[in-house]
Amino acid sequence: MTIVNDSLSIETRGEGDMIDLTNRLTLLLQKYKMKTGQMLVFVAGSTASITTIEYEPGLKKDFTLLMERLIPRNARYFHEETWNDGNGHSHVRASLLGPSITIPFGGGKLLLGTWQQVVLIDYDNRPRSRELVVQFIGE
Amino acid sequence: MTIVNDSLSIETRGEGDMIDLTNRLTLLLQKYKMKTGQMLVFVAGSTASITTIEYEPGLKKDFTLLMERLIPRNARYFHEETWNDGNGHSHVRASLLGPSITIPFGGGKLLLGTWQQVVLIDYDNRPRSRELVVQFIGE
Amino acid sequence: MTIVNDSLSIETRGEGDMIDLTNRLTLLLQKYKMKTGQMLVFVAGSTASITTIEYEPGLKKDFTLLMERLIPRNARYFHEETWNDGNGHSHVRASLLGPSITIPFGGGKLLLGTWQQVVLIDYDNRPRSRELVVQFIGE
Repeated sequence: MTIVNDSLSIETRGEGDMIDLTNRLTLLLQKYKMKTGQMLVFVAGSTASITTIEYEPGLKKDFTLLMERLIPRNARYFHEETWNDGNGHSHVRASLLGPSITIPFGGGKLLLGTWQQVVLIDYDNRPRSRELVVQFIGE
Repeated sequence: MTIVNDSLSIETRGEGDMIDLTNRLTLLLQKYKMKTGQMLVFVAGSTASITTIEYEPGLKKDFTLLMERLIPRNARYFHEETWNDGNGHSHVRASLLGPSITIPFGGGKLLLGTWQQVVLIDYDNRPRSRELVVQFIGE
Repeated sequence: MTIVNDSLSIETRGEGDMIDLTNRLTLLLQKYKMKTGQMLVFVAGSTASITTIEYEPGLKKDFTLLMERLIPRNARYFHEETWNDGNGHSHVRASLLGPSITIPFGGGKLLLGTWQQVVLIDYDNRPRSRELVVQFIGE
């Protein structure tokens, strides 16, 4: 069994921009030729999240609307009193959703559902260059 | 250290049906006779989730009511315009909660709390046959 | 590659008490002298959670207010009918947020963002002594 750290660089537009990582992760897995194992995808930073979703335009809107309803952009955040950078909602959303996911693979393929894509959601209030850690454990 | 993929087949009734996996996962762990390691439980699919909860009838209702309050079944979802299959709420709930959990074990036992059970929650709007990946890493 | 289970004992005040674990986790990692791998942090129990956040006083308040808004302490919970112990909100919050996180490390360092701390949030309605599992896989 081996362990390898790799990374993905992703440009985002911020404010809930949702980016499908599935193809890029599949290509990374092929690069290491592992058959059985798991892939940890982790975004360093406190205003972005990783989850899975059926990546289609309707659900992209639905999930954006959910987050705006639960944690509105224009509400008052005490984070503003610390930094005054306007992204209190970004932090709260990212902490609720979490910064990582672990996906098992078998037979050299990610064991995702057909309609299940791995996405990065950037909640920051400006475009960002994100560096994701992609770690493989397997054989 | 070894790595093994196994699976669990679970029949659900959908619409928030919550199923306690703890005994089944404990039996799987015993099958591999590993002492120290971790178990990744992952549901392939975009309308079901895995989490931990004290599995008792009151909390089952409370968690169902939470999800209905945050993400109502009968609200409008743009997912409906893509597929018209009535399960927009199912997708949004599952993406918020996440498709997996990793549980450590030691001394051959899952290191869960006494009142902490591992559950599958199926948010789809119909009964489903779910295939869960259960992956062991350890020795 | 090796796997090791360790633990952290944390005293909390309950009711959303948020404790920064980052320094303690960094020290644990140094103890094992691993360079590349991952650290699983798991809280046994059904009323506490692990996530990442920028640990500063404003966001601590913001995240507390979010949980009180989504899952109010003084709402009615059916859990109360089972145990009558007043912590229905604690369980529901913990199940929504989840009991664990996996953090990759490389070059002997946790691959967290500069403003990203790992926190335990104790949602129980009384002070608790928490025992966290910290499991390392790596080399």
